[in-house]
Amino acid sequence: MAEPPIEFYFDFSSPYAYLASTRIDQLAARHGRKVAWRPMMLGAAFKLTGARPLLHIPLKDVYLARDLPRMARLLGVPYRAPEPSRFPLRALAASRAYLWLEATDPALAKRLAQAVFHGYWVDGLDLGEAAAVAEVAAPLGVAPAALLAAIEDPAIKQQLKDQTETAIQRGVFGAPFIFVDGEPFWGADRLEQVELWLARGGW
Amino acid sequence: MAEPPIEFYFDFSSPYAYLASTRIDQLAARHGRKVAWRPMMLGAAFKLTGARPLLHIPLKDVYLARDLPRMARLLGVPYRAPEPSRFPLRALAASRAYLWLEATDPALAKRLAQAVFHGYWVDGLDLGEAAAVAEVAAPLGVAPAALLAAIEDPAIKQQLKDQTETAIQRGVFGAPFIFVDGEPFWGADRLEQVELWLARGGW
Repeated sequence: MAEPPIEFYFDFSSPYAYLASTRIDQLAARHGRKVAWRPMMLGAAFKLTGARPLLHIPLKDVYLARDLPRMARLLGVPYRAPEPSRFPLRALAASRAYLWLEATDPALAKRLAQAVFHGYWVDGLDLGEAAAVAEVAAPLGVAPAALLAAIEDPAIKQQLKDQTETAIQRGVFGAPFIFVDGEPFWGADRLEQVELWLARGGW
Repeated sequence: MAEPPIEFYFDFSSPYAYLASTRIDQLAARHGRKVAWRPMMLGAAFKLTGARPLLHIPLKDVYLARDLPRMARLLGVPYRAPEPSRFPLRALAASRAYLWLEATDPALAKRLAQAVFHGYWVDGLDLGEAAAVAEVAAPLGVAPAALLAAIEDPAIKQQLKDQTETAIQRGVFGAPFIFVDGEPFWGADRLEQVELWLARGGW
């Protein structure tokens, strides 16, 4: 029997989730595992924890402006901070589009997620509006009209709410948040531990 | 000419600073470097960032109760969460004692810091009061009366205020916070990057 997938909770608005998204599938594959990507609305968790969007916190903002490109260089992936007016990304449309695609074609959904992450965190696109998400999805073969309709579909809206609620009930309060056989790991800086956990089966 | 020391800013109340404190000197020594330990009052930075003591944040508290012992096991060091009534540690007395000893015997100051970290994060001692710090310091050969006097010394009090202010001006907002030749690294989960930075001289 195949082992259950690693779960990768993220919000497109999280720069560390973007960084982790460039590594998580390859990391899991080294241990014969797949990854289920799970978009969620981090803002709902922030209401409980009192957290604020990372790049808006005094002192921390200055550090992150150094840490994020530094970590991106270390990982060998591109990174560009968004225009201040475009942060945080309101990721509702992109997250709903992901869930809609996932139901019929999980691989395509993941390609969309990667395109959204890259569009926002590298190309500096404003992806808060459904039309912009449709534009990013079109080159992947996703019909814009169908995507725009899905984003307004009450069932999809509810699914994202439910997935966010489930995430919070499972203790997710930040992104990326990764579960390996139920074991929670928070942050791009836990990827080494995730890999060790997979290699050793815990410690 | 000897290279300048790595700077290790910490608050005794930070569990991740405790974990990092068990590794930082050995890590630096592998690269021929020394470490200057710099206690500070993290609460002053928290006033600017709006952060709250880690173990008091909903959702995050549950995660930390899992992450901290897990990381301690990985590092092979003991860890025990303090009684809720004893967290956060009011680290004024211990921090002042450190500065007082450092002026004449930096190695002894570091041994005191290690004893305070261990006393609080392993033995569960309540080290918020000066008398309790004096008790922990006595086996190291520190005369209790002299330590208690130093903790009330206006010059020492001012020195801790100044060191905290300097830390904040340099962008310190959490602990541990490590500077390697001016390059800032926040968190026990940046120790691998600190080591890489030392090995490669940056990237």
